[in-house]
Amino acid sequence: VLEHRLADKIAAYRAVERSFGIVAAMLQPTAIQSGVPPGVCVEKEARMATVKLWTDAEAEAHPKVKAVFEDIRATRKSDFVNNFWRGLANQPEILERTWSALKAVMGAPGPLDPLTRELIYIAVSITNNCSYCIHSHTAAARAKGMTDAQYSDFLAVVGMASQTNALVTGLQLTVDSAFLIES
Amino acid sequence: VLEHRLADKIAAYRAVERSFGIVAAMLQPTAIQSGVPPGVCVEKEARMATVKLWTDAEAEAHPKVKAVFEDIRATRKSDFVNNFWRGLANQPEILERTWSALKAVMGAPGPLDPLTRELIYIAVSITNNCSYCIHSHTAAARAKGMTDAQYSDFLAVVGMASQTNALVTGLQLTVDSAFLIES
Amino acid sequence: VLEHRLADKIAAYRAVERSFGIVAAMLQPTAIQSGVPPGVCVEKEARMATVKLWTDAEAEAHPKVKAVFEDIRATRKSDFVNNFWRGLANQPEILERTWSALKAVMGAPGPLDPLTRELIYIAVSITNNCSYCIHSHTAAARAKGMTDAQYSDFLAVVGMASQTNALVTGLQLTVDSAFLIES
Amino acid sequence: VLEHRLADKIAAYRAVERSFGIVAAMLQPTAIQSGVPPGVCVEKEARMATVKLWTDAEAEAHPKVKAVFEDIRATRKSDFVNNFWRGLANQPEILERTWSALKAVMGAPGPLDPLTRELIYIAVSITNNCSYCIHSHTAAARAKGMTDAQYSDFLAVVGMASQTNALVTGLQLTVDSAFLIES
Amino acid sequence: VLEHRLADKIAAYRAVERSFGIVAAMLQPTAIQSGVPPGVCVEKEARMATVKLWTDAEAEAHPKVKAVFEDIRATRKSDFVNNFWRGLANQPEILERTWSALKAVMGAPGPLDPLTRELIYIAVSITNNCSYCIHSHTAAARAKGMTDAQYSDFLAVVGMASQTNALVTGLQLTVDSAFLIES
Amino acid sequence: VLEHRLADKIAAYRAVERSFGIVAAMLQPTAIQSGVPPGVCVEKEARMATVKLWTDAEAEAHPKVKAVFEDIRATRKSDFVNNFWRGLANQPEILERTWSALKAVMGAPGPLDPLTRELIYIAVSITNNCSYCIHSHTAAARAKGMTDAQYSDFLAVVGMASQTNALVTGLQLTVDSAFLIES
Repeated sequence: VLEHRLADKIAAYRAVERSFGIVAAMLQPTAIQSGVPPGVCVEKEARMATVKLWTDAEAEAHPKVKAVFEDIRATRKSDFVNNFWRGLANQPEILERTWSALKAVMGAPGPLDPLTRELIYIAVSITNNCSYCIHSHTAAARAKGMTDAQYSDFLAVVGMASQTNALVTGLQLTVDSAFLIES
Repeated sequence: VLEHRLADKIAAYRAVERSFGIVAAMLQPTAIQSGVPPGVCVEKEARMATVKLWTDAEAEAHPKVKAVFEDIRATRKSDFVNNFWRGLANQPEILERTWSALKAVMGAPGPLDPLTRELIYIAVSITNNCSYCIHSHTAAARAKGMTDAQYSDFLAVVGMASQTNALVTGLQLTVDSAFLIES
Repeated sequence: VLEHRLADKIAAYRAVERSFGIVAAMLQPTAIQSGVPPGVCVEKEARMATVKLWTDAEAEAHPKVKAVFEDIRATRKSDFVNNFWRGLANQPEILERTWSALKAVMGAPGPLDPLTRELIYIAVSITNNCSYCIHSHTAAARAKGMTDAQYSDFLAVVGMASQTNALVTGLQLTVDSAFLIES
Repeated sequence: VLEHRLADKIAAYRAVERSFGIVAAMLQPTAIQSGVPPGVCVEKEARMATVKLWTDAEAEAHPKVKAVFEDIRATRKSDFVNNFWRGLANQPEILERTWSALKAVMGAPGPLDPLTRELIYIAVSITNNCSYCIHSHTAAARAKGMTDAQYSDFLAVVGMASQTNALVTGLQLTVDSAFLIES
Repeated sequence: VLEHRLADKIAAYRAVERSFGIVAAMLQPTAIQSGVPPGVCVEKEARMATVKLWTDAEAEAHPKVKAVFEDIRATRKSDFVNNFWRGLANQPEILERTWSALKAVMGAPGPLDPLTRELIYIAVSITNNCSYCIHSHTAAARAKGMTDAQYSDFLAVVGMASQTNALVTGLQLTVDSAFLIES
Repeated sequence: VLEHRLADKIAAYRAVERSFGIVAAMLQPTAIQSGVPPGVCVEKEARMATVKLWTDAEAEAHPKVKAVFEDIRATRKSDFVNNFWRGLANQPEILERTWSALKAVMGAPGPLDPLTRELIYIAVSITNNCSYCIHSHTAAARAKGMTDAQYSDFLAVVGMASQTNALVTGLQLTVDSAFLIES
């Protein structure tokens, strides 16, 4: 009976797989090549980029891309290379320039602490409506210690600024001389 | 002769005033009542708002507006009421709600310090391209201690985020599962 | 036999659930706890928010959130509390302030009728590219009586404005004095 | 006498220079050549467009532009042709297409009344931050009967939508199934 | 036994179908009528438009829509009519006007070649964050011969412009007279 | 006497016109230090930046800034250094990185010609509403040979894209599978 049950389960699995198509689509080549193990939930949007996302094997075969991926891993002390870099790998010069600039801007010690920089990054990304950027930098901010209370405080400022920006623009208000004297 | 000269000067003054129109517009009541001394160059845009900017006298005569202006002055410990509030005075309910919310969001103690809040505010305002807001909050950030080095750091992050936002959007990249797992 | 069938169905259900991952993801705790009955199509993106969406049980346990949810239900005469409020529940102060302001702005009687307000709201949301807001307020506009003909008229204006905005900005045209004289 | 004249001119010049400064700048070549009669207030930004603004004489000499200008005047029952059309005259095909579309969208009778259409137009223009468009359509809305109370109501909705758009985008909220069922 | 297996598979299929709902949603009428063969992965977002997407049968029954669809097919020498037109079919006047304008702007011979026009179109669409438009016009650019190297070059310019736009806006820089003299 | 008065008024008018008047108001420290010769009309907004615009003397005294300014002049074969660089000089690291990236992206030979790159740059700048960027890159496009006919063609595409972006976003249209298959 157990055997019978198991066979049925497998059959059911296959029937569903054959019938709905979507399952296979979810485990499409790109995603699999990206090293996502079978059985793990893969984002459906994964195949929606306008370029292919480079796998580690592909990156390994291109000296410039390889060097950047290695530096990303060394700098972040993590094996994880996110889709932004896998997509930019199609444009090796942009990949190099962007990683180099990002490392300098976000990674180097400076007068603003890492979390403050992330908050500024998210604020721009929200206003530009960049979903990927909002997700990745909100995750980064949390990894850098952002508490729920700080996130609430942040969102309140973003909401407030968005509202007053619209009111000021609607009213076409003039900059007070007092503000100009500052600069 | 002197008298003649003077009369001519006055005539020339009046001819110009009559002919060009703009002159009177430049020295309009609002600006003068706002405390700009005669003879000082007044922002031409001052008359470009879609609403009049309320003078202190006008605010004084409207209980709701008066109360908000008084609270602004008391809260900020300054007599200066900037154009944002003078423009919003035309919509007393929005004025009240906006001031009340702004005081709570930007003024109350919380997990983010006042300068960080200003930086977030400016980041949103730059991305929304609100000139008034950029000027007023950059001035506010400086008043709250922003150094030139911090401003440079801030601008570098804003520039970086704007660039990567555009690249990500152009490539229509998928959010990595790793970021989604975070939330 | 019936019992056998039922057991098999359950087994099939579980096999699929275990094997594909995605299915479980579709029926994730958040969605289920949100009161979505089994068998109802659950949005895949439901788990993509940067915060959890509060269930009724969670809201019930937090006085401020509870009070807002109750007021939403009483005001709208409906048990439905949409995701916007379930997400904002993570920031109780923003939740309170936003609901209170929204009720005053969109709900109170005033010189503009409810449908006109919705059209303005959608116009802003389209230009800001806020998918959630476009969907929720287009649904709200329909609920408030928007006809297909009105929606077409609305879209034509939004398209026209977007085009002329771009042309004017590209040409950097000056505001005519005639328009300034108006204000 | 000549000496006297010269001295007076210099004195007049200096009096004006001291008092107003800006005046001459307002009468710069571009503006004068554009057919603005002396004595009319000329916007300083008038020469900031990336193209020349066509005078009536120039429009008269180009059949397509002439026809559009005549139709604008006939349709609006006014001799006034604003800068938008004078700038677009440099691109006669765009001029024709835009006027024809605008007349159909904004001018033809339809399910939305003229003022509602203007409010939608301004909402888009504020969110796109098009200063010219905000000014011209706020003036148009007033010409079509917009009261101060309606303008306040409108601004409150625009501000509210801008704020909630930002919060929703920041939180990356999912569209409720209920809204999708609507459509 | 085989029969038993088959019955079980069907039962499992139906149980899953009933239980999860989503599967049926994936194979919804609209998509099927659009000519997507059963078994092919259908975009889940297909049902997220605020309007129905017109099928060929529906278009056939409406003279104006029919005429536009026929002209699209004749002009493009392809049977494929993309969702943009199937959505706009709900607003026949906008459909007509938009197709007529698009044909004139993108299709007619002119001083800019078809690929350059597509690049400009994508640049605007990226900055406006219109996912559909980015996908459709990136596909169109490729169909018109865009190489990977050209796409990289394009993306680099878009990224650069986005960054400098933000820096200039943040610094509120003045236009140099030299640039104004140009125009 | 009346005739005398009239003549004087006309003379005063002309004296002002010839001399420019504005100069005094416009000849503020920053502008003068920027090397603008007396008598030339200086943009009033010149003092509205949030930072000072570096003069050649100031740049000369800072090694990094000096090196960039020299490279700008050598690369462009022109002594003219526009305000963008004079403003960025306050942030020498951003100045260096931005100039280096801009030179690589806009200046190096590549698959897109210089004019096409400028058109893409302007398209982004219009959509981001960056006045300075629109002016400077429209001037640059003209310097690189853009004809009036090309500019018209360009503007038509920008207008068209802006309109369809808004319609697509309003309708929340799904990306056709056909476009996804492309990539």
